[in-house]
Amino acid sequence: MMMDEDVEQASLMSFNDRPRAFPNMRSKTYSPLIFRIIRKLNVRVLSIILLFCFGAIFYMGASTSPIILFVFTVCIISFLLSIYLTKWVLAKDEGPPEMVEISDAIRDGAEGFFRTQYSTISKMAILLAFVILCIYLFRSLTPQQEAAGLGRAMSAYITVAAFLLGALCSGIAGYVGMWVSVRANVRVSSAARRSAREALQIAVRAGGFSALVVVGMAVIGIAILYSTFYVWLGVGSPGSMNVTDLPLLLVGYGFGASFVALFAQLGGGIYTKGADVGADLVGKVEQGIPEDDPRNPAVGDNVGDCAARGADLFESIAAEIISAMILGGTMAKKCKIEDPSGFILFPLVVHSFDLIISSIGILSIKGTRDASVKSPVEDPMAVLQKGYSLTIILAVITFGASTRWLLYTEQAPSAWFNFALCGLVGIITAYIFVWISKYYTDYKHEPVRTLALASSTGHGTNIIAGVSLGLESTALPVLTISVAIISAYWLGNTSGLVDENGIPTGGLFGTAVATMGMLSTAAYVLTMDMFGPIADNAGGIVEMSQQPESVREITDLLDAVGNTTKATTKGFAIGSAALASFLLFSAYMDEVSAFANVSFKEVDIAIPEVFVGGLLGAMLIFLFSAWACAAVGRTAQEVVNEVRRQFIERPGIMEYKEKPDYSRCVAIVASAALREMIKPGALAIASPIVVGLVFRILGYYTGQPLLGAKVVASMLMFATVCGILMALFLNTAGGAWDNAKKYIETGALGGKGSEAHKAAVTGDTVGDPFKDTAGPSIHVLIKMLATITLVMAPVFL
Amino acid sequence: MMMDEDVEQASLMSFNDRPRAFPNMRSKTYSPLIFRIIRKLNVRVLSIILLFCFGAIFYMGASTSPIILFVFTVCIISFLLSIYLTKWVLAKDEGPPEMVEISDAIRDGAEGFFRTQYSTISKMAILLAFVILCIYLFRSLTPQQEAAGLGRAMSAYITVAAFLLGALCSGIAGYVGMWVSVRANVRVSSAARRSAREALQIAVRAGGFSALVVVGMAVIGIAILYSTFYVWLGVGSPGSMNVTDLPLLLVGYGFGASFVALFAQLGGGIYTKGADVGADLVGKVEQGIPEDDPRNPAVGDNVGDCAARGADLFESIAAEIISAMILGGTMAKKCKIEDPSGFILFPLVVHSFDLIISSIGILSIKGTRDASVKSPVEDPMAVLQKGYSLTIILAVITFGASTRWLLYTEQAPSAWFNFALCGLVGIITAYIFVWISKYYTDYKHEPVRTLALASSTGHGTNIIAGVSLGLESTALPVLTISVAIISAYWLGNTSGLVDENGIPTGGLFGTAVATMGMLSTAAYVLTMDMFGPIADNAGGIVEMSQQPESVREITDLLDAVGNTTKATTKGFAIGSAALASFLLFSAYMDEVSAFANVSFKEVDIAIPEVFVGGLLGAMLIFLFSAWACAAVGRTAQEVVNEVRRQFIERPGIMEYKEKPDYSRCVAIVASAALREMIKPGALAIASPIVVGLVFRILGYYTGQPLLGAKVVASMLMFATVCGILMALFLNTAGGAWDNAKKYIETGALGGKGSEAHKAAVTGDTVGDPFKDTAGPSIHVLIKMLATITLVMAPVFL
Repeated sequence: MMMDEDVEQASLMSFNDRPRAFPNMRSKTYSPLIFRIIRKLNVRVLSIILLFCFGAIFYMGASTSPIILFVFTVCIISFLLSIYLTKWVLAKDEGPPEMVEISDAIRDGAEGFFRTQYSTISKMAILLAFVILCIYLFRSLTPQQEAAGLGRAMSAYITVAAFLLGALCSGIAGYVGMWVSVRANVRVSSAARRSAREALQIAVRAGGFSALVVVGMAVIGIAILYSTFYVWLGVGSPGSMNVTDLPLLLVGYGFGASFVALFAQLGGGIYTKGADVGADLVGKVEQGIPEDDPRNPAVGDNVGDCAARGADLFESIAAEIISAMILGGTMAKKCKIEDPSGFILFPLVVHSFDLIISSIGILSIKGTRDASVKSPVEDPMAVLQKGYSLTIILAVITFGASTRWLLYTEQAPSAWFNFALCGLVGIITAYIFVWISKYYTDYKHEPVRTLALASSTGHGTNIIAGVSLGLESTALPVLTISVAIISAYWLGNTSGLVDENGIPTGGLFGTAVATMGMLSTAAYVLTMDMFGPIADNAGGIVEMSQQPESVREITDLLDAVGNTTKATTKGFAIGSAALASFLLFSAYMDEVSAFANVSFKEVDIAIPEVFVGGLLGAMLIFLFSAWACAAVGRTAQEVVNEVRRQFIERPGIMEYKEKPDYSRCVAIVASAALREMIKPGALAIASPIVVGLVFRILGYYTGQPLLGAKVVASMLMFATVCGILMALFLNTAGGAWDNAKKYIETGALGGKGSEAHKAAVTGDTVGDPFKDTAGPSIHVLIKMLATITLVMAPVFL
Repeated sequence: MMMDEDVEQASLMSFNDRPRAFPNMRSKTYSPLIFRIIRKLNVRVLSIILLFCFGAIFYMGASTSPIILFVFTVCIISFLLSIYLTKWVLAKDEGPPEMVEISDAIRDGAEGFFRTQYSTISKMAILLAFVILCIYLFRSLTPQQEAAGLGRAMSAYITVAAFLLGALCSGIAGYVGMWVSVRANVRVSSAARRSAREALQIAVRAGGFSALVVVGMAVIGIAILYSTFYVWLGVGSPGSMNVTDLPLLLVGYGFGASFVALFAQLGGGIYTKGADVGADLVGKVEQGIPEDDPRNPAVGDNVGDCAARGADLFESIAAEIISAMILGGTMAKKCKIEDPSGFILFPLVVHSFDLIISSIGILSIKGTRDASVKSPVEDPMAVLQKGYSLTIILAVITFGASTRWLLYTEQAPSAWFNFALCGLVGIITAYIFVWISKYYTDYKHEPVRTLALASSTGHGTNIIAGVSLGLESTALPVLTISVAIISAYWLGNTSGLVDENGIPTGGLFGTAVATMGMLSTAAYVLTMDMFGPIADNAGGIVEMSQQPESVREITDLLDAVGNTTKATTKGFAIGSAALASFLLFSAYMDEVSAFANVSFKEVDIAIPEVFVGGLLGAMLIFLFSAWACAAVGRTAQEVVNEVRRQFIERPGIMEYKEKPDYSRCVAIVASAALREMIKPGALAIASPIVVGLVFRILGYYTGQPLLGAKVVASMLMFATVCGILMALFLNTAGGAWDNAKKYIETGALGGKGSEAHKAAVTGDTVGDPFKDTAGPSIHVLIKMLATITLVMAPVFL
């Protein structure tokens, strides 16, 4: 809420001129009114309302735990910092009118699509909220909930409210990402006329703004929900709910976030890449005009990338925080730890520190050249890398401090140190993942060069080589994640925390801590991620406004760096998803145990039904990828036909005499994206529910208790494993194709216009839906499956 | 053994002229001598030796069980029939000299490659035999084996002997497939000058010959091993081994078969498709000359297809028979069935009937047109389909009869009927699989037409559409197999067979019976499969010897049908692998239980190490596919460079003035194939062993008993699931691309030479390694993983 107001305030000047920004987002009827009211209020009244909100939040925080107070404080400081960053970015000049004109066109397209897309998503969210409400009104409660006097209706309202809040926050996260990037791109282009370093700094600070907002919102949203439930339900007082059971009430928030993220990623990916592939196929391959040429009627834009990445990382963080809280609570209960709040709130603190250290990392990137660097040309990647290294060093320190602060317990005095090591495992894993994806997608290394060489023998060998490269690139990450899971589990298990029978119980929480370690620099990574589409767009604006060669060189350099950071952050995202996967279905099993009141500890795939569940889960990933890729393919075909038509009907376009009809192409991709995102999205949501229900019924008739829950667990696990591999394959192959093309464009193997280049462009177009539609959608899918099973668990029993 | 002599005899005329046939196959030193001795013996001596062999076999059969006698008789009759079929095919004329010349060149290439390939494979097999010997000399025995007085050395020799016999038989199966197809192709071409129906009949009978030999050899090999061990170890007499433990001794045979099949498929696939892709890329795309044009120095040939398909189906049948025998034995022991031999020998009988009914199906295809058919042009597919329908109807009848004969037990009088229904489930599953793969790969249906349409907008959209089609095509088969597994398990469980505690135990055997049902028409399906490459080659010969248009039309028609049958039989192969998968790892779990002497019934993927095993298993499939595809890509690149070089250095080739250097291309692909098959093959063999050992050690130090065995089980299951999906994806995408190209060549969307056609050719070249190298190799890989874990099980404990 508050966040949203900040955004409005910061953008008041340019925002008021364009009153089209997502009126449909909040809810169908009230939001425009709220909008109007807020705009009518004067600053003094607004400040009072804000202060009142702050007061209420801090009051609840103080009643819950001092840790929550700390979290609130950090989040609010980082929001203030993000306002400063926006103001700083917006204060930069927009450059000459021709740039502004193009930037406006991109903004119009992006905001228009965002509005229609999110109005569709919000309708679906409301529909789903009703379904959840109905299901929860007829389901059972956990014995703890019953004991705490939490009725069915109450639990239903809580879950639905959490779901809607999660969906809303995710929508805001997406909006913020889109909002800043369509404003920053033109400022980066303009700055590129002056200095590369200044352009870099603007892109980083713009990315940093949305990263801080996204991470901060995930943290503060959960913290608010937690403390609200804590105060409201009187947790901890005799006869009421136990604090260790509280995190289970938050699952709706995670599901809401991933629900919106899934459709945002799908729709955005199809929109951007449909336009992109179509434009490349006719423009580059058939007509031989360069990328982002103004003569091409189909110019891609970046709504998909920015909005979707924001929503994706938001739900990653939210889902992982919630499952780590559930596992922390379960473990604390089993070990009978006196004050369990440290274990439960640990993830929130880690991300609070994340906000602090990432801010330092972002601010460490200066607008003028580092005097100590001797080389005439500065590598922007090195600058970003330096900031990342700083952030990582700080992360190691703060993570160690957080474990000592929160995870110290007298029952196992050295446990905190083991968990600190788990965090280190996570941080190292993140680093290795980033390194591996760089190795496979950067043209400085062997794989992409081999791929480029394969282009010289034709389209066919290029595709075969790219597919092989992508498939092969799954091996090292899987080995890394295997070592990480086992060693974190082992560290946790040997931490000295034991249950009442003396059995070590810290293993799962160890993997949870490792995941937190991996995500402990999330805000900085998200900044680098957001940097990519902003730089890409800035390059497009420079190209289309026909700036001199020197300016293009700077934006090309930033664009190439953006490609690398995009690829590496995808590696990071899938790495954290992989590490979190084990955590997420452990949380699911804990939840099923709580609801069914029987121990649910095994998923035995030697039972045929459970095995079949696995088969279906793996199949789900294949089918989902198929539909996501096909959607882009179909959209691109429509675009190709439209562009061909325009070139034929308006022969003047090629000689710059006629202006192409851009809006027609935008309308085609927008409507196609909205149409095409439904099928894969619905598949992802419906299939775990259907499978769970079918096998629940089958289990009832064949006398196998918990069959539905077991089959869903196995489905989830196989889908996760397959999804990790498929996403790695799709992301890496796509990134490698893109960079193989870029490598040839540097003049290798015949350079631009050669046969090798044409083959490489084919690879690039194939890679587009792989790396920007299907691949990232699978990240979201994996976590959405986990959160939907968490929310729907009572249905499968 | 005997089989081999039959083959020699039947081919004596043409064989003696070309004394190059695989001298390296049997063993390194003796076989050439044996060859020479056999050739020097006169027919009378040979007959006496044969009669003596028959006598020994029948004596052992009679001492074992009357069922074995039945199996022997059927196998020998079908070998006699196959000799008749060869003689019939070889009696056909070879056509004009220009055809014979080309056919000879193909034969030389194929036999030369076969010789070098199998000499490499046999060296590796001998090496591996030593490894197995060493492992078995230091491993533990099952308590049953110890009780039976079976020492370590004896058990080691038995396993190694079975392994080598399996490898040898698999080699012979591959050789027979290759041998007949390089002789039948020219006869089919020649007959195509007279009548389509006669050409069809020759191709079917040639395919039928090798199908009968392959299936017959798998059955008789296992039957001979079984009865040898039975008689030798004195099974059944007091104090010696129990008959229900006997099948465990056969696992070496299955592993030998799948070991050879894996390398045969990999090497053959790389050889054929490396040449094919390279030829297409330069010939069709760059120079615009037709497929199989004599001016193209790189002409693909069919050693890979025929030899590999023979070896593949051989190991499928062998592995599935053995695991069904193990499961039957375990169940009979648990249920304390008085005479368990019916349950153990059931799979052998099913395949004996398979030989009979498939022969009827093959012979039902007449050489002259069916007078009742009214239409002027006859669809060869309909003819084959009619034979298949006849075979299926007979299969239902004989399957029902076999269940009544062998699976009737007084303990559960209606069990046989339940198992008959399981068989029906299998037969129906096979039928649905064939139908689904036809739907996705035949251009009469929607998917391929959509794919062809996507070609009209460029290379990129064609690839995206093909990938999506392939990924999507996994869904229906998975649903089918899920229903089949669950219903067969349920039918088995409700059969009334219970163990001493009254718990139903027939479930797993039910899925085994369903698998047998699916494979009950294997010989006919293999015939259709072999038909494909023969028709393909015949088309090549007609094209290269520049026959009139009318002859080409006939071979083109047969070729198209061959493509469809190849695609559908791949569906069949993967379907049976999927159904068998559950059976194979149940057999593995049974074996681990027997060796460890503790119950091993659960594979709980909630244990982190077990989950990691699954992750590694799924990754194995991705990495294996990557390496298989990359091998073809690299080989094709070498071919492209060589062909380009020849076109530049010998400009007369394009005007038919100079002859291209075919042998240079053959040498390139042959050496590349031998080099490239090692890496994926070694990966497949080494990884389960390494994973099993590593986790065994880890389990030892962390105090988790059986950890190695559990992790391997989970690896196997995840690899199977992922492998099924990946193989379905690769096969279907490849088949669809091929047929989309063929559809455009019929004149649709601009026809040959159009831009759409060029894009479709790109898709076709990408599809080649998918459908003919990686895809079928994964079928073999899945089963090889299962058999290697069966053989290596004692190592993981």
